Amino acid sequence: MAEKINIIGGGLAGSLLSICMAKRGFEVNLFERRPDMRKNRISAGKSINLALSTRGLKALEQVGLDKEIMKEAIPMYGRTIHSRTGEINYQPYGKEGQAINSVSRGLLNIQLLELADAYENITLHFNAKCIDVNIEQGLATFEMEGGTKKTFSSDRIVGTDGAFAATRARLQSTDRFNYSQSYLPVGYKELIIPPGQGAKFMMEKNALHIWPRGAFMMIALPNPSGDYTCTLFMPFEGEKSFSKLHTESDVKQFFDEEFPDAVPLMPSLLKDFFTNPTSSLVTVRCYPWSNGGRLTLAGDAAHAVVPFFGQGMNCSFEDVMVLDECIGNYYPNWNKAFDEYQKQRKPNADAIADLAIANYTEMAEKVGDKVFLHKKQVEHKLCELYPNDFKSQYELVTFSTVPYKQAQDRGLVNDLILAYIIDHKLEEQLHNRELILPVIKNKGMM
Amino acid sequence: MAEKINIIGGGLAGSLLSICMAKRGFEVNLFERRPDMRKNRISAGKSINLALSTRGLKALEQVGLDKEIMKEAIPMYGRTIHSRTGEINYQPYGKEGQAINSVSRGLLNIQLLELADAYENITLHFNAKCIDVNIEQGLATFEMEGGTKKTFSSDRIVGTDGAFAATRARLQSTDRFNYSQSYLPVGYKELIIPPGQGAKFMMEKNALHIWPRGAFMMIALPNPSGDYTCTLFMPFEGEKSFSKLHTESDVKQFFDEEFPDAVPLMPSLLKDFFTNPTSSLVTVRCYPWSNGGRLTLAGDAAHAVVPFFGQGMNCSFEDVMVLDECIGNYYPNWNKAFDEYQKQRKPNADAIADLAIANYTEMAEKVGDKVFLHKKQVEHKLCELYPNDFKSQYELVTFSTVPYKQAQDRGLVNDLILAYIIDHKLEEQLHNRELILPVIKNKGMM
Repeated sequence: MAEKINIIGGGLAGSLLSICMAKRGFEVNLFERRPDMRKNRISAGKSINLALSTRGLKALEQVGLDKEIMKEAIPMYGRTIHSRTGEINYQPYGKEGQAINSVSRGLLNIQLLELADAYENITLHFNAKCIDVNIEQGLATFEMEGGTKKTFSSDRIVGTDGAFAATRARLQSTDRFNYSQSYLPVGYKELIIPPGQGAKFMMEKNALHIWPRGAFMMIALPNPSGDYTCTLFMPFEGEKSFSKLHTESDVKQFFDEEFPDAVPLMPSLLKDFFTNPTSSLVTVRCYPWSNGGRLTLAGDAAHAVVPFFGQGMNCSFEDVMVLDECIGNYYPNWNKAFDEYQKQRKPNADAIADLAIANYTEMAEKVGDKVFLHKKQVEHKLCELYPNDFKSQYELVTFSTVPYKQAQDRGLVNDLILAYIIDHKLEEQLHNRELILPVIKNKGMM
Repeated sequence: MAEKINIIGGGLAGSLLSICMAKRGFEVNLFERRPDMRKNRISAGKSINLALSTRGLKALEQVGLDKEIMKEAIPMYGRTIHSRTGEINYQPYGKEGQAINSVSRGLLNIQLLELADAYENITLHFNAKCIDVNIEQGLATFEMEGGTKKTFSSDRIVGTDGAFAATRARLQSTDRFNYSQSYLPVGYKELIIPPGQGAKFMMEKNALHIWPRGAFMMIALPNPSGDYTCTLFMPFEGEKSFSKLHTESDVKQFFDEEFPDAVPLMPSLLKDFFTNPTSSLVTVRCYPWSNGGRLTLAGDAAHAVVPFFGQGMNCSFEDVMVLDECIGNYYPNWNKAFDEYQKQRKPNADAIADLAIANYTEMAEKVGDKVFLHKKQVEHKLCELYPNDFKSQYELVTFSTVPYKQAQDRGLVNDLILAYIIDHKLEEQLHNRELILPVIKNKGMM
């Protein structure tokens, strides 16, 4: 008889994992706290659109969903920077043709659930809120619709129940479980730029828009229907902060001063501002992710990251791929499979968590800074001129499947290379291979 | 009518706090999960004896218990280091007469509870396990003896319920609560050296004994009845670790090799080793400690530290003093009182947590190292020769009430001073004030 796997959390990571496990022939139960989003489209209490990039696409490819998802995606080839005076500056993300893709979280989740539902060996359970887990006995107890409690047994449990995971809470009370939850002093609020007449995009369509203002910023991602989901990221407290925006006139004045070119595009700004919640941004780290061969965590449940590198979903999908591969390599030794998985993923999850936090400063502050822009231009040229020898950290994170930890380390080396080139005023000689290649290679050896 | 304060956790911090609050005229309820330890002497699941030093003594003085406690205490004036070959080396902790004091955790707790019980405005509740807290409404729900549930209302709640506090767990689910629990790879096991005939101390009585062995160590603290509580600190995994000691012969061989001079003094070693648990060592950090003016945390509930600086209780008692002082300064503005308290204590709690972790390396590894011993000797002489200008970090932490953060910072400066003196071979000229005083003062300015 096939082993039973209970997957707790039917978001992006959980629904993808259910498909991978079904493909391996296991008997899969997938439990989701919310109602079936295919019937009533509801917000997951999370951001509306996400940036899908190479790692995520590779995972979708393995379950045959990549092409379908990409049909509905909007490629964003770079950042469009909006200054306070309405000037616009464009920074490409990668080489010609490289883009991150704005996709709808809801639609992606629905497509994954539909694919999962087509497997005979996957059973979907909605409105099932996990309230207890007995790791040793493989039992998970849920509060079902209407308040009844139901316990399901299994051979293995995977917790994909997000940043505030019930499965992880259960691990937290086991001995020697390291855990941290750490909030940024910055919160966020979603706003909207609606389409013009005939679903017209009111700004550049194929770009991620940023209004960098130092300690705070607004960003906007395009949606297929012609609208943009805007997000204002700003400190909770301080001079320019959510705590200072009490009245409609506070908000109006603030937006008029800071984002004058956006205001005419945001007719429902004041209503949206006071209707939509101000949410917080948490980084969660823990270890071990696994408890013997009985239970493991994946996705946000194992490592919630802040959204500033656009890698949350991509990282979670990569978890699923690595977990699936480890099970493939070591089954039926679940202990070994879960242990190899966590050992491989933990340093990479830590790296992307760090990079995401650091990227807030880059997006909110540096992208508007001349010295930084110059450095980015030199970096971009090096990427184009030396594609085999020089790869930017952004490129490695976003357009490759090199482990995040390696991308992080490479970023430090790149900083040395760029500092050397700029210090020695070599910007006009970047094409001189005999001069530049040794700089790239030697710094890489340091 | 007096405001009602519910204190959850009747350990050392909670019982001391109840007395301070009663003195201020509040109506105090003190809830303790365990039975009344005055009736049945039970272990708190924690170490048997503790090192009471200046900060803790100052707190006890304020409630008039210091002299009574010190009657039963054993002063330890320094460390007695036991080498593998049985050689003994003595390092004084401070100047002539300065000592840390071995006291019984149980006895100290009982004396605090008895004092609390004498106050008409304190009600003690035992066998009351906190299972829920409603912060906004000031409600705390307990599972009482026999399993009945009872809810108590109050104006303010203070959580003094230890490293695994239920009160803190409630805060953990509030937005923007930063939290971490981090385990050392090292565990511990308590063992015993019984008294000789006529309650004779079988080793030096007035010292803390250490058997430093690099990655692991044993320590022993004297008890008034002539016995020593020994603690073996050792990694859970690895070459020399708990995971390698399976059989009686494993344990016997290990102790014979590592602690040959202690073995003859430990007749029940093998029985104790397999009967007593192997416990883990956690550092807990969180912030904020307070939720408005309704609830705050103190002691291990706010900041569990590892035991290697002997400051856990002293730090908790200092929390209570500062909290009491802030309430005195700002009452009836509880919001302000709790906020000032947490702002004052948080950096100091973080500092002692760091220092305690660092002290494991010092105790297990460095105290047996010649270079370190030389440095300590120079430091000790500077303390004696320049009492107004040079204070060691250990002295500041243990024999003063200078904030822990300041003591930590001063330790870094002292390292520079000592490095300078040793690098310049000034050890023989320490008494030369014209030469040495500028070194002390200038490094202090850096």
